[in-house]
Amino acid sequence: MNNFLDNYTRLIEEKKSIVCVGLDPAIPNQRNSNVIPARYIEGNDVNEARLNFCLDIIDDVSDFAIAVKLNEQYMFGMTESQHLAISNLIKKNSMLSIYDCKLGDIAESAESKIYWIHRTGYDALTVFTNPGNLYKIVHFAYNFLPSIGIIAVTLMSNPEAHKYFIASKHRKKSLYLEIASDVKKFNADGCVVGSTKHITARSIEKIRETIGKKRVILFPGIGTQKGDAKKVIKFGGNNILINIGRKIIFSEDPALSAKEYSKRFYSLRKELLKLDN
Amino acid sequence: MNNFLDNYTRLIEEKKSIVCVGLDPAIPNQRNSNVIPARYIEGNDVNEARLNFCLDIIDDVSDFAIAVKLNEQYMFGMTESQHLAISNLIKKNSMLSIYDCKLGDIAESAESKIYWIHRTGYDALTVFTNPGNLYKIVHFAYNFLPSIGIIAVTLMSNPEAHKYFIASKHRKKSLYLEIASDVKKFNADGCVVGSTKHITARSIEKIRETIGKKRVILFPGIGTQKGDAKKVIKFGGNNILINIGRKIIFSEDPALSAKEYSKRFYSLRKELLKLDN
Repeated sequence: MNNFLDNYTRLIEEKKSIVCVGLDPAIPNQRNSNVIPARYIEGNDVNEARLNFCLDIIDDVSDFAIAVKLNEQYMFGMTESQHLAISNLIKKNSMLSIYDCKLGDIAESAESKIYWIHRTGYDALTVFTNPGNLYKIVHFAYNFLPSIGIIAVTLMSNPEAHKYFIASKHRKKSLYLEIASDVKKFNADGCVVGSTKHITARSIEKIRETIGKKRVILFPGIGTQKGDAKKVIKFGGNNILINIGRKIIFSEDPALSAKEYSKRFYSLRKELLKLDN
Repeated sequence: MNNFLDNYTRLIEEKKSIVCVGLDPAIPNQRNSNVIPARYIEGNDVNEARLNFCLDIIDDVSDFAIAVKLNEQYMFGMTESQHLAISNLIKKNSMLSIYDCKLGDIAESAESKIYWIHRTGYDALTVFTNPGNLYKIVHFAYNFLPSIGIIAVTLMSNPEAHKYFIASKHRKKSLYLEIASDVKKFNADGCVVGSTKHITARSIEKIRETIGKKRVILFPGIGTQKGDAKKVIKFGGNNILINIGRKIIFSEDPALSAKEYSKRFYSLRKELLKLDN
């Protein structure tokens, strides 16, 4: 049984939302803006501050999102029990947890990471396929109970990604399409695909054609990076997640912001895909 | 000033070694063999167990190695202060610390990870270049004091890596050579290059020609994965590190094992490169 995709399909119906909330708990020391509010820092160590911020956001958005994506690059030093507190609250609030670590490694090392991700209760993780061993990663992740979802970074949202994902080829096929073929062939759960300018409607359409209808496409880059929501909804098909990070988590009212994105995307979906509900 | 390469050059002279010890602190629960000894687990939580194991190995190998590579896939849940204890002991024992996290992300997320790696005192990290933003990563890492070294995964040791590193091309050039060009162009500190069968002497030679004489090539895969030490020493040139993981850290006598590898590689280096000492 594929736990991740089955739960995704159920949640989209139940909650009428395709929003994934991106949690990037940056602390004030590390940059000037888009950081967790000062009230979380006062009197706490940086782990407690990041944990409490994440837990509050998870509670805030739980009525309007069906998934939460934790960005590993902001979680350095968090303990197993802190990760568990996060994944448990996400589960309790009927959302899927995606650990965005862009894992790419030789099989033995990748398996170690997946072992820890399983221990800490996350439902899925993001992976890079360039090591070429996606079949081993999927096989390992599916042997857990519940199985762990594998979402492959297929076409990144930053403009420089053009070089290695589009302009680079495997037997004359752009690598992003070869990665999409791997996702289908090795039965991974979905793709991460950017939504910014260099990613055309046709590219999104081709990825969807390659991976089939059921797999999830997770689209980052719609909020702050100004990707195009209409494009990804129209060409991404039924089973997508739109990730919104900073525009929700660092807004004055995360619940309200999540609610607005959720309504807007769901009604666009209904309209553009001509769905009954 | 380039701290990482300068320290590397100094240490190789001082210690007469090109050994990097690979720390993969797997716990007994996660697999059947190649795990940290039971005595570390008894009465400790998994973080203390992994920490104490790492600290013991660092002390054991300090006379025979010039670098220690921490494999992030085995460090999940370790705290900032535990990472600091590790990096400080490596520094105290006159070795370089390389945080092997194969970081690949959009610039803002990558910068967050590098911020934490700086906070926890590591000297260098490994990166994937497929996001195409290596120049941003290097720029960000070099602005710290001391600057942080960036070592790009250029050609992986697992056989499946052939597909995306060798058989895939950018303007008719195999991607591993395009990555090597990026390393030179954007002034990163070196490359990670496998040493196993599918990586030919000629490939190693071409990488060295591309990146110039001074940058470091870090070769994993010589021990358990059975890569060829003579090949990497002969064609890798003067500035290399040979990573040995399991064959040292899980041997009965890590100090003795490190000593033997160190002597063998250093005398092979003298012989094959016709050096005076």
